[in-house]
Amino acid sequence: MTRINTEDVGEFYQHYPKVAAVLTVNARGNKNAMAAAWHSAISFKPPLYGVSVAPKRFTYQLILECKEFGINFVPFEAAELVASVGGSGGSGIDKFSKFSIAVEKPLKTNVPILKDAYAAYECKLVDNKTYGDHVWIVGEIVAVHFTDDVFMSRGTLDLDKLNPALYLGAELYMTTKGESLRLLDRETYGRR
Amino acid sequence: MTRINTEDVGEFYQHYPKVAAVLTVNARGNKNAMAAAWHSAISFKPPLYGVSVAPKRFTYQLILECKEFGINFVPFEAAELVASVGGSGGSGIDKFSKFSIAVEKPLKTNVPILKDAYAAYECKLVDNKTYGDHVWIVGEIVAVHFTDDVFMSRGTLDLDKLNPALYLGAELYMTTKGESLRLLDRETYGRR
Repeated sequence: MTRINTEDVGEFYQHYPKVAAVLTVNARGNKNAMAAAWHSAISFKPPLYGVSVAPKRFTYQLILECKEFGINFVPFEAAELVASVGGSGGSGIDKFSKFSIAVEKPLKTNVPILKDAYAAYECKLVDNKTYGDHVWIVGEIVAVHFTDDVFMSRGTLDLDKLNPALYLGAELYMTTKGESLRLLDRETYGRR
Repeated sequence: MTRINTEDVGEFYQHYPKVAAVLTVNARGNKNAMAAAWHSAISFKPPLYGVSVAPKRFTYQLILECKEFGINFVPFEAAELVASVGGSGGSGIDKFSKFSIAVEKPLKTNVPILKDAYAAYECKLVDNKTYGDHVWIVGEIVAVHFTDDVFMSRGTLDLDKLNPALYLGAELYMTTKGESLRLLDRETYGRR
């Protein structure tokens, strides 16, 4: 084993894999979708979700305009969809039409919700803050869409029924191993 | 397939799995480690990393004091370590001693770097901002530690050699499927 300790941070792909999200927006009929690998839940109450977007992105301008966005999670079988919307600029083209992306009706916003998504969040913008070369966009989750059959009773993904599209960096995608599931109760392990 | 659309956001576990990170800190000898599932890269230049921490956490107080933190990523075989540090309060106990957690020397900070981590970032605090019931802590990555053998040439994880500990919500952990790897070049797919 070769251990490397370096100040050369580079592209720092080491923190991957991450669920590949599709960020969607609809500002007065101007719809767009982009791939987003840098995203996270950040608060339970209220339920807040953050996503990092480069300010040059057309999607970013649209989010500032309509103050809402959607976060969509797709199965591994739909990973090409993520690569497709990730590889094409959104200004002047309708990616939904170009890539035949089916959408369903949102509940509380106007954001496009992907039919292919096993889960999606509708978010209302609450903050946007520049950090380095990206903007951290924070939204309150006001509605959740999900395919009930692929989730377990407590709301966690059922890996025997659905494997999510995970991004590994450098255009690589992969997924989960259902048989690897382990319940590790933190209280039990914290007491050891 | 039952599709559910609801304003009842609940615990919103749908965005998982996520790599389970161990957040470490050392404020003048007061060392601590906690499990962190809400974290993300947020900028390339400078390289910035964010992690969401509840302000009641002992680790949060220590980070404010020393203005640095470590983000450690461990293999699936070490998932118990994550559950252990996640399930025990840090004030008044030394989790490194209690759970026999081996550390290695940091390069640019004083944060503990886990020997079990296949990769770890040393970060200098650049911002902390309250969002809802958590604080979004942002650090600049000033040094990277990693086990060279388990990464591929471009710096992505080699899933044939290492499977990361992924958190699924509700105390469930799982890992990746090496044979599922697919290269989906975004430019190719964006042009389709």
